[in-house]
Amino acid sequence: MLWIMTASSALKTDRYELTMLEAALRDGTAARPSVFELFSRRLSGGRRFGVVAGTGRLLSLLRDFRFGDDELRYLRDEKVVDAPTLRHLEAYRFAGSIRGYREGELYFPGSPILTVEGTFADAVILETLALSVLNHDSAVATAASRMSIAAGERPLAEMGSRRAAEDSAVAAARAAFIAGFGATSNLEAGRTWGIPTMGTAAHSWTLLHDSEEDAFRAQIAALGTDTTLLVDTYDIRQGVETAIRVAGTGLGGVRIDSGDLPIVAGAVRQQLDELGATGTRITVTSDLDEYAIASLAASPVDAYGVGTSVVTGSGYPTASMVYKLVARQGSDGGWVAVAKASQDKASKGGRKAAFRIVSDGVAQSETVVVSDGFEDLDSPAAHPDGRALQVSFVDGGEIDTAFEGPAGTLAAREHHLRVREELPVRALALSKSDPAIPTVYLDAD
Amino acid sequence: MLWIMTASSALKTDRYELTMLEAALRDGTAARPSVFELFSRRLSGGRRFGVVAGTGRLLSLLRDFRFGDDELRYLRDEKVVDAPTLRHLEAYRFAGSIRGYREGELYFPGSPILTVEGTFADAVILETLALSVLNHDSAVATAASRMSIAAGERPLAEMGSRRAAEDSAVAAARAAFIAGFGATSNLEAGRTWGIPTMGTAAHSWTLLHDSEEDAFRAQIAALGTDTTLLVDTYDIRQGVETAIRVAGTGLGGVRIDSGDLPIVAGAVRQQLDELGATGTRITVTSDLDEYAIASLAASPVDAYGVGTSVVTGSGYPTASMVYKLVARQGSDGGWVAVAKASQDKASKGGRKAAFRIVSDGVAQSETVVVSDGFEDLDSPAAHPDGRALQVSFVDGGEIDTAFEGPAGTLAAREHHLRVREELPVRALALSKSDPAIPTVYLDAD
Repeated sequence: MLWIMTASSALKTDRYELTMLEAALRDGTAARPSVFELFSRRLSGGRRFGVVAGTGRLLSLLRDFRFGDDELRYLRDEKVVDAPTLRHLEAYRFAGSIRGYREGELYFPGSPILTVEGTFADAVILETLALSVLNHDSAVATAASRMSIAAGERPLAEMGSRRAAEDSAVAAARAAFIAGFGATSNLEAGRTWGIPTMGTAAHSWTLLHDSEEDAFRAQIAALGTDTTLLVDTYDIRQGVETAIRVAGTGLGGVRIDSGDLPIVAGAVRQQLDELGATGTRITVTSDLDEYAIASLAASPVDAYGVGTSVVTGSGYPTASMVYKLVARQGSDGGWVAVAKASQDKASKGGRKAAFRIVSDGVAQSETVVVSDGFEDLDSPAAHPDGRALQVSFVDGGEIDTAFEGPAGTLAAREHHLRVREELPVRALALSKSDPAIPTVYLDAD
Repeated sequence: MLWIMTASSALKTDRYELTMLEAALRDGTAARPSVFELFSRRLSGGRRFGVVAGTGRLLSLLRDFRFGDDELRYLRDEKVVDAPTLRHLEAYRFAGSIRGYREGELYFPGSPILTVEGTFADAVILETLALSVLNHDSAVATAASRMSIAAGERPLAEMGSRRAAEDSAVAAARAAFIAGFGATSNLEAGRTWGIPTMGTAAHSWTLLHDSEEDAFRAQIAALGTDTTLLVDTYDIRQGVETAIRVAGTGLGGVRIDSGDLPIVAGAVRQQLDELGATGTRITVTSDLDEYAIASLAASPVDAYGVGTSVVTGSGYPTASMVYKLVARQGSDGGWVAVAKASQDKASKGGRKAAFRIVSDGVAQSETVVVSDGFEDLDSPAAHPDGRALQVSFVDGGEIDTAFEGPAGTLAAREHHLRVREELPVRALALSKSDPAIPTVYLDAD
């Protein structure tokens, strides 16, 4: 049996975008060339850097941003917009251009993470979709990168699907992988994004059997002695003893999902060594976050599994990115930089380009070149001596496929691990602080 | 153009569930009749009650929990499970039964929110999907209900899609609606779940135009004077003045999205009244949560729009529900109540039924009747004098359609608003506290 559905992403949109479109079609401003920018005014939670994630997913969703019969029927039946707007939406294909930070790139306050250029009509209706994807995925990636730094060389797996809605669980697994995690428990993330998957058994496996010994014997019969046995269903010391008695000293690993981990891990290591199981690995999985991982650095732990904290951004489940009109043509045909002046929510108008200034391999600043109008940001005068941070994702409506799918995801991970090396040492601390490098604005002219 | 995809939900599953299935098929325990329970040991964040949400979505996802060619190919290619397990999965249809709390119902620590009965093979592989949906949706609904209580009779709209991943945004809109919100900005939530949608214009609408006055004139020309004008792009006092000059005193409303709201709302109300626009409504939308809403109770605000805080569960983006084996048949054919004893994570074994004891219209306790084995919980002796909290959702694999779709969503909302009336007054306070009513366990025999 096959389920068939249209996968249009077009209604994952706030109603006001279509309301504005209707009004703009009516007064002619819909055709005004416009520049929207996706950026964040601050780093959530006193983080020292942010990690961009979601771009590859966004590009695939943009491909499916089409108003088909089902979408148009809903909008007509509910009188969301008028007939001319429905005709416009029926023909809608994003025909503009999008450039921005590569997925996996670091970002700082004011970084122009995405720049969307097109008519107002083209660009205004992408606001919600772009923010939904980037805010969620970047929040997870930012937390995940801190955990990955804290874990150092020890393997780190994401296993938080049960603490995230069923589709964001897949996106979260992907974001964590980009930020340095090595594997996920989520099979859909494995299928869709090519991420390695892991997992052996839950407490229910032990409880299903008449004894813990029965459960361990059955698991080893099915999965071999290299498997990982969960030893804390009843009593950890007894569990470890049973595990080695059943599996022998060649047991692959034990997993501990409860208790005071630094103490328990030390005791289990000692017990395993005394039993001769010196090569048996210890995986811990109980309520870990970046602080708990850091506190286990000196403990004899071989691998970490992280759930709730990574998929919920470790206290900051969304980034604070916004999508703002920063420049447009006026009625006289000239370009105008625009920005709102609202209290605490002011933004910086103008088209922008961004550069990471790196000296002796260490990032010094996020330099953002601002054009008041639409002067050519590609001119040499507008180029400081740094790494250009924006690349082209969509050109005249054509989406660059290099950033999508498993290949784009893996490339994002490699990019992240590479640019993370440029961070100054102070950026690696976990405590709340200012951004690791300052954002510097330069005028293009 | 039509996009076609299989909508199987079967891989939104942690790998270890299939690993356990493989091992259980091998040692014969896969066929053991088993009872799994979904419950929470505590209420997140010192909340005084929890709100169950997601059940209707879960039932629809269960309908699509099928291992088709694509899913089986992935599992085979990646060697996730062996050939006999693949054959088992190919034929898999959940053939067991699920009962539990109605969507919109309140829950407390230990409430048996869902009870899944079937063979171990039937029930073990639903763990991740059930927890993903219920943990996310219930976290949002619990926060939303507190906001709805704080808002009282004033209209309350959800507009947080941009701060949630694109699919959980739709689920969050639904959960907020169930918990008392009246509308959402999210069009997909409108289409899929029949929720009223709202929204008029963003700051980009004002910035698109050569002046704020141009923008207001164009919006009124398109949408009529009953529309809501966003007045804080530049200067609120000037914005209100322009709004009434352009629209007249019959303007529907103004929206304020920044500033110190109690002060600003008071000033805007006074200005509107002085201008003669005594019927023009004030909507506020800036970083609201349940505490901010409560603090605005005495301010002249007519409606609230809530974004980030509702879709992220107002500090608690996931509920702490778990899915545990609580009873199973043993090798001798007798029933055994089972529970893990892990430190801080102990659970209570046994099949359960639950009742809300209500006296003079006020809830007194959550009474959970526990059967050590599989005694009939339907016997009169096991029934305290209260409202039975569990209903049948799935019987022998047949899903009751009454709980799905827009009709099920609306019924859940009505149920929530009805049962919320039974809460004692102390449950309505926002500060951290113990659960509003105690959970009382009774033995069935």
